[in-house]
Amino acid sequence: MWLSASCFLEFQIPVPTPFLLMLRPRSGWQQWIAREEYVLSPSVPAVEFTDIYGNLCQRLVAPAGHFSVLTSVNIETADVSDTAPGAPFIEVQQLPDETLPFLYPSRYCESDRFTEMAASISAGRAAGYDQCDAIVDYVRNTIRYTPGSGQQIISASELNQLGYGVCRDMAHLGIACCRALSIPARMVVGYLEGLEPMDLHAWFEAYVGNRWYTFDPTQPDLQGGRVAIAFGRDAADVAIYTQFGDPVELINMHVEVERMPGPTY
Amino acid sequence: MWLSASCFLEFQIPVPTPFLLMLRPRSGWQQWIAREEYVLSPSVPAVEFTDIYGNLCQRLVAPAGHFSVLTSVNIETADVSDTAPGAPFIEVQQLPDETLPFLYPSRYCESDRFTEMAASISAGRAAGYDQCDAIVDYVRNTIRYTPGSGQQIISASELNQLGYGVCRDMAHLGIACCRALSIPARMVVGYLEGLEPMDLHAWFEAYVGNRWYTFDPTQPDLQGGRVAIAFGRDAADVAIYTQFGDPVELINMHVEVERMPGPTY
Amino acid sequence: MWLSASCFLEFQIPVPTPFLLMLRPRSGWQQWIAREEYVLSPSVPAVEFTDIYGNLCQRLVAPAGHFSVLTSVNIETADVSDTAPGAPFIEVQQLPDETLPFLYPSRYCESDRFTEMAASISAGRAAGYDQCDAIVDYVRNTIRYTPGSGQQIISASELNQLGYGVCRDMAHLGIACCRALSIPARMVVGYLEGLEPMDLHAWFEAYVGNRWYTFDPTQPDLQGGRVAIAFGRDAADVAIYTQFGDPVELINMHVEVERMPGPTY
Amino acid sequence: MWLSASCFLEFQIPVPTPFLLMLRPRSGWQQWIAREEYVLSPSVPAVEFTDIYGNLCQRLVAPAGHFSVLTSVNIETADVSDTAPGAPFIEVQQLPDETLPFLYPSRYCESDRFTEMAASISAGRAAGYDQCDAIVDYVRNTIRYTPGSGQQIISASELNQLGYGVCRDMAHLGIACCRALSIPARMVVGYLEGLEPMDLHAWFEAYVGNRWYTFDPTQPDLQGGRVAIAFGRDAADVAIYTQFGDPVELINMHVEVERMPGPTY
Repeated sequence: MWLSASCFLEFQIPVPTPFLLMLRPRSGWQQWIAREEYVLSPSVPAVEFTDIYGNLCQRLVAPAGHFSVLTSVNIETADVSDTAPGAPFIEVQQLPDETLPFLYPSRYCESDRFTEMAASISAGRAAGYDQCDAIVDYVRNTIRYTPGSGQQIISASELNQLGYGVCRDMAHLGIACCRALSIPARMVVGYLEGLEPMDLHAWFEAYVGNRWYTFDPTQPDLQGGRVAIAFGRDAADVAIYTQFGDPVELINMHVEVERMPGPTY
Repeated sequence: MWLSASCFLEFQIPVPTPFLLMLRPRSGWQQWIAREEYVLSPSVPAVEFTDIYGNLCQRLVAPAGHFSVLTSVNIETADVSDTAPGAPFIEVQQLPDETLPFLYPSRYCESDRFTEMAASISAGRAAGYDQCDAIVDYVRNTIRYTPGSGQQIISASELNQLGYGVCRDMAHLGIACCRALSIPARMVVGYLEGLEPMDLHAWFEAYVGNRWYTFDPTQPDLQGGRVAIAFGRDAADVAIYTQFGDPVELINMHVEVERMPGPTY
Repeated sequence: MWLSASCFLEFQIPVPTPFLLMLRPRSGWQQWIAREEYVLSPSVPAVEFTDIYGNLCQRLVAPAGHFSVLTSVNIETADVSDTAPGAPFIEVQQLPDETLPFLYPSRYCESDRFTEMAASISAGRAAGYDQCDAIVDYVRNTIRYTPGSGQQIISASELNQLGYGVCRDMAHLGIACCRALSIPARMVVGYLEGLEPMDLHAWFEAYVGNRWYTFDPTQPDLQGGRVAIAFGRDAADVAIYTQFGDPVELINMHVEVERMPGPTY
Repeated sequence: MWLSASCFLEFQIPVPTPFLLMLRPRSGWQQWIAREEYVLSPSVPAVEFTDIYGNLCQRLVAPAGHFSVLTSVNIETADVSDTAPGAPFIEVQQLPDETLPFLYPSRYCESDRFTEMAASISAGRAAGYDQCDAIVDYVRNTIRYTPGSGQQIISASELNQLGYGVCRDMAHLGIACCRALSIPARMVVGYLEGLEPMDLHAWFEAYVGNRWYTFDPTQPDLQGGRVAIAFGRDAADVAIYTQFGDPVELINMHVEVERMPGPTY
């Protein structure tokens, strides 16, 4: 399917403030960017680099005053996300090198504390995809999805105690449990067509059956229409913006995702 | 200055043919991409990856029949390219690791055969920028710039014998001489505003005074208005498209570069 | 100074168990490896790769039974670690790309929770090295260093509540506070000559004044004689060994570090 | 098999001279380094980095006077090199990203000039391993292997005219022909047990059947006992030492490779 997606951020900046942004999605196996726009207003010098996970990141110093960032894409993405019940667990010694960072605990995914819980949740399931599936079911059934509830980022174990959270938190819990079973799992931040209420979204991917598969504990069905903007170990890696120095106010944020006809060139 | 630049390629493909494309410029210290478009027609699955030099590359299999690729960007780039007469030579042991691949001879820049010539051309000049300058003067004065003359890519030493060539060839000769003096030098393929006749362009950069500087043996003055699309050791690394298998016919190629007003959002 | 250092690990393995090891130090600006030995007993196939931080890592499947790993090096390292009182804070926009991952919170360094504490600890100190110094003083004076006390890895905020910990924990707290001030900070695992009791050691580095500097909250004076084995965001990244699957018993671990005469070839 | 291998280089240095060395083999799928030694005499500061192909490289400034480098390893390597008649050609669109640089022409492997010759040599052979085999046969039967004959490095097309050369040259010709068939091929410099006369050796690897396979046009049988020191596109990438500035004299070079019993720890 073809999507037109955009994210608009508007800030009030008291003093010139360094920002790190991750708002340029990449074309990959599962998505192709046909058009892209990245507008800084006012226009300021910005630099782009590739981070350790392959994301394109932008650095700039936002000037004092009103500052906004508008990014938009036209993108082709899958109608449905692949599923693979029965896809096998990959033994650690057979994992590709680049999946290994996603085996370790990270800031918001304390997988080292979930060994027993993950084993219990997935007991009786075939090692691999089916374990991930059981984990997602557990998160979906145990944690109340409350979009808009999360300001401070909480970790998987904090979420487990709290009992409700946003998409990001639920992804963290899913990731922590997968890693506890030695399954590489990574956070994805992006757009999801049809999300209610519309916002940026977070879900996760797990590496089983020799590839990454999509899992989304917040959605009853694993729908397609996903645009990945950034990949990382958890929310600490994939903030769409990070600002340094005194806090600045985000006075407006607006996300849109629309289906569009394919190109007719 | 703000530029709108585009490249249109049109092929007649007899049988499905794998392509490697390098047509997505990156935002960097010297250019910021505000809008970008990449249209495959017909639309086919494509994959993007980052090569060893940091270029974004696209892989696809062009279907039989008519196939076209249109890429365009709106981009902010420098009004003038920096120059730095007197900028010093950087001793090899002080060079950043990532510049080292650009010290070695490569397919079309046989720097190992230019030791004497480079020393002779730059005799009496201060080590560093001024040597590069002398080399560019030599190439500009010795080789006749004949846009459109080059089908088969020739190497620096072949150009030196032939006496005339295209921008790519002249860049190769400049690069070979710089490397012969232990100055890292790399090829740039991109757009140049005001180029006559309009086409894709090639120039080179040399690393002196602790940064890369632009050199262009084909232009009387070092003008700005440059958009770098890809960096590499020579033309073997930065072909905007490489096709594999039986040759396909490029039936049309059209390049446009226009000044545009800055964004007025 | 020249050091001979070794680490011996001995396991009892119930069933074949995948291991990830980080026991091959690299030659770098501050250390040169003249001799190195890496003995697996029994000898099993092992594979080496470079992780996202540049560490050499080894993967293998330990066979059931008795399994040991002996690594040793002869290495030249600095007599004293550099200090740089007054070295300035580097603005985020000027930091090298490769330092940026060390700005973010990580599993055991919840820098997002230390903003106020770090500001308070370093109040009145010049931004940069002197802030790091104040942080190290704080950790040294507030946390009781109790080698051998730590089995489960605890995080910076857990340490802050507990009040005592091992070198690894104290490094985590120092790192968390530096990052809270937007100073990149990374964990180092290695050898330290003269450590009492002898063991592997952990300290940290902070990026100020355009380079990494060594800080060690466990030692009264910043002595040299350090051999870095691995760098990472925290202990989750730089475990000298990680085993997957059911826990195996480490039945013996022995570390030796001795001064040696320089080579007399 | 277990090998003990060493390389000794002795120079007379007129003025301090920067060197780039590639003399630290890595443990990989096919070899495991159990002991390694790297002795600079006199001992001078050296820095190590990883190049774009994953090789460990060392940089130093050799002091005026007598300077020597001794490297040695104890290493476990395969008794025989794998062969795979019939292993299929991998379509370009299926090749792993990291193999792609080895598809392009390079300084000494002008694959762009070998399209017809490669097709003719391998006519009638199954695409993939068997084509490589035909190429190696051609090189072995057409080019006279004359160890010790090569001072200046010559390219594949120069060798083809000359008719005789050293191992490095013959590898270049094999590589150029493979690449002309869209088969990734890379140069390997290393040790070979039993080589007559003993010296460093060069061979090549081609990527077919989803992995790299070893090919050696200089040896009648594809024996094992190989130790890879460095990988690259051709000899320009994998010189075991490169010196910059005025030429220095290599007054002695000595290579030893001996079988040794496996470790008996």
